[in-house]
Amino acid sequence: MTIATRLAEREDNRLPARLARSLRTITTRAGLPIEEFDSWFAERRQAHRFAVERLPLAKLQGWSSEPGGNLVHHSGRFFRVEGLHVTVGAREWQQPIIVQPEVGILGILAKEFDGVLHFLMQAKMEPGNPGLLQLSPTVQATHSNYTGVHRGAGVKYLDHFIGPGRGRVLTDVLQSEHGSWFLCKSNRNMIAETTDDLPPDDDFRWLTLGQIGTLLQRDHVVNMDARSVLACAPTTRPEAGALHSDTDLLSWFTMERARHDVRVRRVPLADVRDWVLTDEDIRHRDNRYFRVTGVSVEAGNREVTSWMQPLFEPVGLGLCAFLVHRFGGVPHVLVHARAEGGFLDTVELGPTVQCTPENYAHLPEHERPPFLDLVTRVGTDRIRYAAEHSEEGGRFLNATSRFLLVEASEAEAADEPPPGFTWVTPGQLSSLSRHGHYLNVQARTLLAVAGLCQGRL
Amino acid sequence: MTIATRLAEREDNRLPARLARSLRTITTRAGLPIEEFDSWFAERRQAHRFAVERLPLAKLQGWSSEPGGNLVHHSGRFFRVEGLHVTVGAREWQQPIIVQPEVGILGILAKEFDGVLHFLMQAKMEPGNPGLLQLSPTVQATHSNYTGVHRGAGVKYLDHFIGPGRGRVLTDVLQSEHGSWFLCKSNRNMIAETTDDLPPDDDFRWLTLGQIGTLLQRDHVVNMDARSVLACAPTTRPEAGALHSDTDLLSWFTMERARHDVRVRRVPLADVRDWVLTDEDIRHRDNRYFRVTGVSVEAGNREVTSWMQPLFEPVGLGLCAFLVHRFGGVPHVLVHARAEGGFLDTVELGPTVQCTPENYAHLPEHERPPFLDLVTRVGTDRIRYAAEHSEEGGRFLNATSRFLLVEASEAEAADEPPPGFTWVTPGQLSSLSRHGHYLNVQARTLLAVAGLCQGRL
Repeated sequence: MTIATRLAEREDNRLPARLARSLRTITTRAGLPIEEFDSWFAERRQAHRFAVERLPLAKLQGWSSEPGGNLVHHSGRFFRVEGLHVTVGAREWQQPIIVQPEVGILGILAKEFDGVLHFLMQAKMEPGNPGLLQLSPTVQATHSNYTGVHRGAGVKYLDHFIGPGRGRVLTDVLQSEHGSWFLCKSNRNMIAETTDDLPPDDDFRWLTLGQIGTLLQRDHVVNMDARSVLACAPTTRPEAGALHSDTDLLSWFTMERARHDVRVRRVPLADVRDWVLTDEDIRHRDNRYFRVTGVSVEAGNREVTSWMQPLFEPVGLGLCAFLVHRFGGVPHVLVHARAEGGFLDTVELGPTVQCTPENYAHLPEHERPPFLDLVTRVGTDRIRYAAEHSEEGGRFLNATSRFLLVEASEAEAADEPPPGFTWVTPGQLSSLSRHGHYLNVQARTLLAVAGLCQGRL
Repeated sequence: MTIATRLAEREDNRLPARLARSLRTITTRAGLPIEEFDSWFAERRQAHRFAVERLPLAKLQGWSSEPGGNLVHHSGRFFRVEGLHVTVGAREWQQPIIVQPEVGILGILAKEFDGVLHFLMQAKMEPGNPGLLQLSPTVQATHSNYTGVHRGAGVKYLDHFIGPGRGRVLTDVLQSEHGSWFLCKSNRNMIAETTDDLPPDDDFRWLTLGQIGTLLQRDHVVNMDARSVLACAPTTRPEAGALHSDTDLLSWFTMERARHDVRVRRVPLADVRDWVLTDEDIRHRDNRYFRVTGVSVEAGNREVTSWMQPLFEPVGLGLCAFLVHRFGGVPHVLVHARAEGGFLDTVELGPTVQCTPENYAHLPEHERPPFLDLVTRVGTDRIRYAAEHSEEGGRFLNATSRFLLVEASEAEAADEPPPGFTWVTPGQLSSLSRHGHYLNVQARTLLAVAGLCQGRL
């Protein structure tokens, strides 16, 4: 080893160009021709029986309330719904929260065909997905899927991501999930490249980044996990500079993290104030935010062919928007350092606007989130991207948001952003996405859009 | 703003060369000539009355035990000593822990004289420091020092680090403190550059990195906060490559973070098993690990001229060592992904060996930490660096460790490292130190040594 040690280059400088080539490629013979996507997807939908029925929480077999009201599975597995007391500076509230302290793997397998990187995407049904079937990563494995006695059994392609035979890693980072709904949950976001000869299974197809970018412009096709993983690949274009250097950006973020005082305390679900627990569901007394409801699932293509589980169902259509503007010819987006109770550390960078507008409809404009009125009222000529996507369908039911890129006018961009907001380039966000806990999951969806739907910024 | 937007370069590519020049400079007319350091330090020691006396915990004015035994200050300020239940995989223990959920600033001010960067270092006394006086950052401010009504009052040079008139930021990152003694504590590690004309106060002198590196080779001169901040500056040399690419290193770290299951629960101090609370102190029943004891301090150069406080006092001399080896001509160090109960997220990278050897003296070799016997038994010809330094003297009493860089033989370096260990370059650690929660505080001391005492690797 020491006599003829081969050192690696610290950075794979060819990767951005390889991703850029995949991004330019829409027509492919090796993978799935894009014009055949709809028929393949329709065929997969036909191929599997997958029925979801709503059920009252009290009727979920295997689930029950502990003393104190926490909702748990009798096996101790999967996840728990508990209560959380959150203090952010002078604001204080209590809410139900999902507790699932284990790290899953979201992995996309890559392979070069005819000199172009393709990505193995899965047509996968989840009970909470609008339309049930969405385009998902190659692998979505919970911790119990990939450890212990059942190591890897039942999860196709998993051995390309872990263990001695895994592929070449292009990306591998722990990223947060929803801080308003999960307590300190994170997942490994991975891309691994293989050179193995791998004819895809029926539910899997090789797609280029350009193809995935095309599909990302449609509603409810690309699932949250796939968007999150793709956001962690360096797909953004070279940039001539930025309003703020990377050091100044990191310093601003450090200051934001330090100035926010976020404290949380787990409390029994039955004690959570302003929330009502019934046999039917768990809901806010004013029907705001979300409710916890139950579903029964019958599936034909799963190891377990039927199960019941709780899901979090938001009350309204969400809105996640970046204001975008070119400074000195370089695209920038306006990020917001958001405090969410379930974040591991005070704040992460989110979209300019991230909320469910109807939760604020009863308030006067100055009490609504900054920029909410701006992004909902601008003319369509300033909307560079708009699509509806949903959050993870294994935990969230119809958790749909409208994702927007909205151009800021010269006058709006000239204003000093309010405290907690700053302009950054997509390239800077890409650099941060190599590390965990900088970008929240909603910002990652918009970064995936910025990277894969180029020309929108 | 938009018409003539000036973009910044994302990276300040001149900074490494400027730091390298400061590192090469030992002789300076602008700052403190190194041969005058001892007389200046002796003079500062004379200038201030600073008397520390040990006291039983029960005699600490202002401090008392809450119901449940937690040790608190009657003002609710400063810090608390509580109990912590820690579970790391199959291991479980309880211990006292310091709870201080606020972010302080550790800041070093930089300024160029005659084309060479100098750093404004402070001769500062802390009650727990061996020898009391150590070379410290320009600013060590707790959160209450720099916010609220007393904003900045009493903390010299603080306005160079925060607020509208601050200097140009070279480094600003939230780094963890001791995960075995603090619960989720982090501080801002900052370097800011000024062009103001600033004659230093009596307790402050301008030093080059070369001078600080010289002092870092002596015992108990450079304090922990200064070492930590300096570790976050990109002072390492250019490297031709590394055993593992940055992506592979990040992937390994992600895997280590994901595979460790670390859970903590705060418990009342009086309930902590295996620990004995008396009026005198709090100690482990076998006198292992550390004890919590009290001191009374009389100081002549502080806003508050006398106070009493608890301090954590480790039972023995610690040992923090990196195994070092050149692979393909490039220096590498062997890092260990360590789980500590107080870390925000499962593991951080620590030295190859980090322990108090006498806590393990009663165990057979195979139950002692990996590499402990190796680094304690090697001949002096393989020791590239050795010095004693202490941890922060405001919380820890005589918390001294021997810090070592120990050369691994060809045979030792050829072995595959055990799980949880990997070889990385100082340059890779420098890149990680731009972000929080990768490097623990002990690894940061050794990284500062690697950066400032070049030629030792």
